[in-house]
Amino acid sequence: MFKDKNMKQLDEEQKRIQETISKIKHRIAVFSGKGGVGKTTLSVNLAFCFRLEGFSTGILDADITGPNVAKMLDIHSDLIYLNEKIIPFEKSGVKMVSMASILTKGQPLIWRGPMRSKMINHFIANVEWDILDYLITDLPPGTGDEILTIAQEMRPDFAVIVTTPQEVSVIDAERAINMAKQMKIPYIGVVENMSGLICPHCNNVIDLFGIGGGKILAKENKVKFLGSIPMDINTRILCDKGQPVVLKEPSAEISESFKSIMKNIELIYKEKELFNIV
Amino acid sequence: MFKDKNMKQLDEEQKRIQETISKIKHRIAVFSGKGGVGKTTLSVNLAFCFRLEGFSTGILDADITGPNVAKMLDIHSDLIYLNEKIIPFEKSGVKMVSMASILTKGQPLIWRGPMRSKMINHFIANVEWDILDYLITDLPPGTGDEILTIAQEMRPDFAVIVTTPQEVSVIDAERAINMAKQMKIPYIGVVENMSGLICPHCNNVIDLFGIGGGKILAKENKVKFLGSIPMDINTRILCDKGQPVVLKEPSAEISESFKSIMKNIELIYKEKELFNIV
Repeated sequence: MFKDKNMKQLDEEQKRIQETISKIKHRIAVFSGKGGVGKTTLSVNLAFCFRLEGFSTGILDADITGPNVAKMLDIHSDLIYLNEKIIPFEKSGVKMVSMASILTKGQPLIWRGPMRSKMINHFIANVEWDILDYLITDLPPGTGDEILTIAQEMRPDFAVIVTTPQEVSVIDAERAINMAKQMKIPYIGVVENMSGLICPHCNNVIDLFGIGGGKILAKENKVKFLGSIPMDINTRILCDKGQPVVLKEPSAEISESFKSIMKNIELIYKEKELFNIV
Repeated sequence: MFKDKNMKQLDEEQKRIQETISKIKHRIAVFSGKGGVGKTTLSVNLAFCFRLEGFSTGILDADITGPNVAKMLDIHSDLIYLNEKIIPFEKSGVKMVSMASILTKGQPLIWRGPMRSKMINHFIANVEWDILDYLITDLPPGTGDEILTIAQEMRPDFAVIVTTPQEVSVIDAERAINMAKQMKIPYIGVVENMSGLICPHCNNVIDLFGIGGGKILAKENKVKFLGSIPMDINTRILCDKGQPVVLKEPSAEISESFKSIMKNIELIYKEKELFNIV
């Protein structure tokens, strides 16, 4: 049967996407309804937690117009192609691909949804991820194009929903949980971020965004609560310098929070004996 | 010349969009690169600042998949149509339209870009805004579909870019500034939000996200710096209750910050004698 060139290209891309994901054991999508709740900080630190346990791990920055993963890893080089494939960057053993490696600093990417989705497909089909135990995808906020494309093409097996305890954030996170349910992502868990702040002057806990909203959300929606992370000024400073806190200060309280969330995710996978996800 | 039904409908919509914006003196778009920097809090409080000065004011919630304006105004009714036009809600004299009035709580809106843009056009063309001095549009994060559609159809005359002082936020805000420049929005200003936090226990200033990043950003990109807003726990609590702080506690320090930003915007309009924007 005759197929035109475009259709053929799409077929080939689909084949390459299947190939890529067949080599990645667990695909975790980190999302939230609202922005600025700490998705990227969680994605990056979770990836290094898995790596520190000896797993082969990668991060895909799926925030096409506002990519921050590269900055948080202090990687500022241009994308490297080899035999028409993108070679992911590596930091302390974690592989990473981000749109930031294509964009010029400060220049906006004014792309409508279909173009952004095309780029995500490109990042799944044409990146030499090789065999991975975990690929963590850091998504943009909302329930729009990038999330749909990742859900359909990458077929994640775990949706990690990040929220702050604040009500407006919890409302948006509930939408994200229901999106993950509709997308039939097998495992869904909630992380509460910015859960209290310790004053560096007087050591009292400041109830910045409230506390407990994430736990209630998980319970009400019958999904797992994976843990909470306190707000930590030092983590923010390290983020801006491109140094994930779990690497730089592995025994800090906040690093323990990230590790505990990673352990909970691992446990869920183990419990369900989900070893064959292809 | 023959036109099919679809084309005719689009023409009519364009006519109605022109009509709508011809009746709105100043159209302010509030955006940022990154999410969670306080766009909605600023949009809502700015709107009430203008209203308190006697101006007729409206807010359009252009965050289609993560609308929070209605929640921040404690408006939970369904959208009201009259003669095929949407009648905006009103709170203390400020008009408001949000996708939240159509969505069921917790249910995600899984729409790709073209559908979201269509909804924004609908909100410009078919809402009975009437004559307004100021319409403030609260945009979703990023530089995607909604922002493009608002820039093209609403033709804002002022882009207010919100950032926290944190580096990863400033990087994304720079992209937003350059997008506003490319979109030829005449006036561009930067607001620094979450600029320091006062500990409620010991009254010392906590350098949560750093301080000053927004001012430097404005200077480097040759746009106006409109002012900074401290982080305030009470404002967050009032937000969650649907009570804008400038209404509830007009003499609070943070309310003064919002007022000062409003005054700076007014001043820029006055300075440039921008009284005919159609």
